[in-house]
Amino acid sequence: MKEVLLSDLLAGALHRDAEQPLQRQIYDIVRRCVLDHTLLPGQRLPSSRALAADIGVSRITITLAYDRLIAENYLSSRGGSGTFVEHTVERPLTAASPAALQRHRPALSTRGAANGSRRGGLAQHTGAFVPGIADAGLFPFHLWRRLVARHLNKSDLSLAGYAKDGAGFMPLRQAISNYLRISRSVVCEPAQVILTAGTHQSVDLCARLLADPGDAALVESPCHWAFPLVLDAAGLRVHAATLDEHGIALADTTLPRRARLAITSPSHQYPTGVVMPLARRLELLQAARAAGLWVIEDDYDSEFRYDGAPIPSLQGLDTDGRVIYMGTFSKTMFAGLRFSYIVVPPHIADACAQACARLYRPGHLHLQAALADFMNDGHFAQNIKRMRVEYGERQRLLRIALQARAGGLVTLSEARAGLHVYARLDRAVSVARLTAAADEEALVLGVPHFLPEHAARDRNAVVLGYGGVPAARIDDGVARFARALDKAVATARTRAARG
Amino acid sequence: MKEVLLSDLLAGALHRDAEQPLQRQIYDIVRRCVLDHTLLPGQRLPSSRALAADIGVSRITITLAYDRLIAENYLSSRGGSGTFVEHTVERPLTAASPAALQRHRPALSTRGAANGSRRGGLAQHTGAFVPGIADAGLFPFHLWRRLVARHLNKSDLSLAGYAKDGAGFMPLRQAISNYLRISRSVVCEPAQVILTAGTHQSVDLCARLLADPGDAALVESPCHWAFPLVLDAAGLRVHAATLDEHGIALADTTLPRRARLAITSPSHQYPTGVVMPLARRLELLQAARAAGLWVIEDDYDSEFRYDGAPIPSLQGLDTDGRVIYMGTFSKTMFAGLRFSYIVVPPHIADACAQACARLYRPGHLHLQAALADFMNDGHFAQNIKRMRVEYGERQRLLRIALQARAGGLVTLSEARAGLHVYARLDRAVSVARLTAAADEEALVLGVPHFLPEHAARDRNAVVLGYGGVPAARIDDGVARFARALDKAVATARTRAARG
Repeated sequence: MKEVLLSDLLAGALHRDAEQPLQRQIYDIVRRCVLDHTLLPGQRLPSSRALAADIGVSRITITLAYDRLIAENYLSSRGGSGTFVEHTVERPLTAASPAALQRHRPALSTRGAANGSRRGGLAQHTGAFVPGIADAGLFPFHLWRRLVARHLNKSDLSLAGYAKDGAGFMPLRQAISNYLRISRSVVCEPAQVILTAGTHQSVDLCARLLADPGDAALVESPCHWAFPLVLDAAGLRVHAATLDEHGIALADTTLPRRARLAITSPSHQYPTGVVMPLARRLELLQAARAAGLWVIEDDYDSEFRYDGAPIPSLQGLDTDGRVIYMGTFSKTMFAGLRFSYIVVPPHIADACAQACARLYRPGHLHLQAALADFMNDGHFAQNIKRMRVEYGERQRLLRIALQARAGGLVTLSEARAGLHVYARLDRAVSVARLTAAADEEALVLGVPHFLPEHAARDRNAVVLGYGGVPAARIDDGVARFARALDKAVATARTRAARG
Repeated sequence: MKEVLLSDLLAGALHRDAEQPLQRQIYDIVRRCVLDHTLLPGQRLPSSRALAADIGVSRITITLAYDRLIAENYLSSRGGSGTFVEHTVERPLTAASPAALQRHRPALSTRGAANGSRRGGLAQHTGAFVPGIADAGLFPFHLWRRLVARHLNKSDLSLAGYAKDGAGFMPLRQAISNYLRISRSVVCEPAQVILTAGTHQSVDLCARLLADPGDAALVESPCHWAFPLVLDAAGLRVHAATLDEHGIALADTTLPRRARLAITSPSHQYPTGVVMPLARRLELLQAARAAGLWVIEDDYDSEFRYDGAPIPSLQGLDTDGRVIYMGTFSKTMFAGLRFSYIVVPPHIADACAQACARLYRPGHLHLQAALADFMNDGHFAQNIKRMRVEYGERQRLLRIALQARAGGLVTLSEARAGLHVYARLDRAVSVARLTAAADEEALVLGVPHFLPEHAARDRNAVVLGYGGVPAARIDDGVARFARALDKAVATARTRAARG
């Protein structure tokens, strides 16, 4: 191979009108030719001046490309005697043939392909009627910004490191513990509070700490989409427990073998809105005791009750140390903050903290310090109080509008609570047709996540969230929802008439 | 049971000098007595005035406790006729006997117990010679604070939500992609860059996407403690690949059955510091192609090279799409920031983004936007440049001091790179005795994480980090290290003489 070949090669391969600079194109071509031995080890390359003249580019372009190739050991410069192809590449690296690639290219694993394709949460987080989202537009970012900025400095360098204690920043755990004891009747000390990076991580941590691969977990059906997904990803078999008008009914559920834990949302079942009465709570704890089950209580939106009756937590009734209480800042602060927490019985608190440190290597202590201030300075309680009024009014308006515009076709969940209502649909409406019609009205509806064994006839419902809908726009959203409903019913009737 | 019993009960159980307010004590006692039917459903309780007089506390204390118990449905108030125990509790909830608890209380799972106890990373993150930590004391927090504060407002509410695209904030992925293409010869488009919450999550994501439970993964031995831990937690069997003076030697490794992936740190093997030459890189890619393995390239500290020779990434040599490039902001920014990234081949980029959204539900977009600005405004490159000078000087001083004070007992890794040196110890020194002696000198030494099959004779080494040690304090740290070494050798000699 002669030196002249490089200029021929470049002359033929350079795209002068391409977006990529010529210098980079030359670098790429020479590098590839060194790697595949089109340019042989030891071969002398033309001088930058000669090459520049040959292919008609500026000399500095060639010099810059050569310099980088020399710095990266593809070429070497031997003083005055020229530029040479390095000997480092002993065997040419050739691209695999397409057939060989097909045969050899590693693919996603079975679980990887499943995780990479199945439906998760909605991608849209604002507007009517995306469920489960707090209204970030009303969050006091001016206060939050000030508190975060207060800690982003060098006065305490330990905040810039990993969380020494995997369970999080102790003053924040103290503030959460105070809050939960007072407002949720949770029985806990700060050491029992474990910070996580969101409810996904809370469930993952529980699954890995409390169950082994192949063990079974019980969930409600419908439930939050993440629960079966995260439990399954942790190797658990997921089964639906019986769910009735008083919530999860563990005593009526045939337990699968190796059942280890149950997840429930007793204070405002997600998404059906069922509120579990005290008697059922006690029955649940007794059934869990008899079966030796861990109970994970998801108390995701209990801060927002609009009829004044607080419901104490299940955890506060537990005398065995079998309830893990799970809460989040996603609804009381804003979703992207990514702080949730679990409260665990004292006898496993150290193990939980250690497992967090090992499995997740948590940090974000500046934010945790700011959040502790936000709570201790009273902003947290203040914000909840303010938002409770706001969300309560939105739910009131939503109920009025739905009753007026679509009362014949939907039946709403009763609880005056949370950030959504559960709307059971008349059997003339199909959820698939309704969501399609809603899409045409620029509406997003939550579709409840049922477990496969859930009877098809009981699946006729949608979830309407109002966290992303200002009060003034609720009626308009409902008007569009009513139009979508009518369209879905009309389609059904047309089809029935045709069929 | 008569009403008088409640006053007797309270009079006997209240601790007037306890930290807990009397009102809370009364609430707790009454609630417990309602739950276990010491106070029977329907029973009339004394008026707040009468009870207050009976037990000698202020009436407001009783009123507040009663109000809360009424609000939580333990008691009810029937206008003028008094306060009654509610009927909600049908069956008394009794605490399990200690024996029954022993039998029934759910325990941690097998993997939970393992994860809750095994050693992870060091809890200490500053001082001589904690390995792998950036010096947060030199980080420009004044700039970072300004950029974070710039985004913590309501101008873009989508930043307050979950990451719509599970792979992260696109302008940040664009900035990372530009950076990696220029400085690390990584071949990538922004869509191939997947943001993670740290290297733990990067490895977890790879393990779940690329391998199924029971598949095998190859790691270097020694390696970062998190790799075997996270791979094992994801259900993989972890094996050591051969590691020699040129790095991982896949071609010389007997592959376990169902081998799916290998993790390597070619640019500065962690912790031994071996730099993989180009020829070995090509050999590695060819061996991986032959075996159909995914290769995960951990490029954790390649920003810090002090002898001027950049080493292009393994990813840039890959023509098959089998290399996953892994990088982190923990060394270039600060550890607690919790942003790392992987660069994946185009054919699995969408699946990776989707899996992130599903498995982790990421957020922190305000911080991602600030980080994009930090990079695009040039602060990131500027900070690396500044810290490269600083760390280079620290390593130089560390080498000089170690040579002078302990040259006969330690042999240092050669690479002028990173935030640590690997110190092989004379066989007269035992690592256990050395770390014990170092502890007395208030020093923290990194102990390399070897796989079980690693030969005991090759384990005689410690890792010395200087990210947490200002240049002016290096010599003092080394003096203490030398004293610890002498002590460890003297102990060994005394024992040998005795034995």
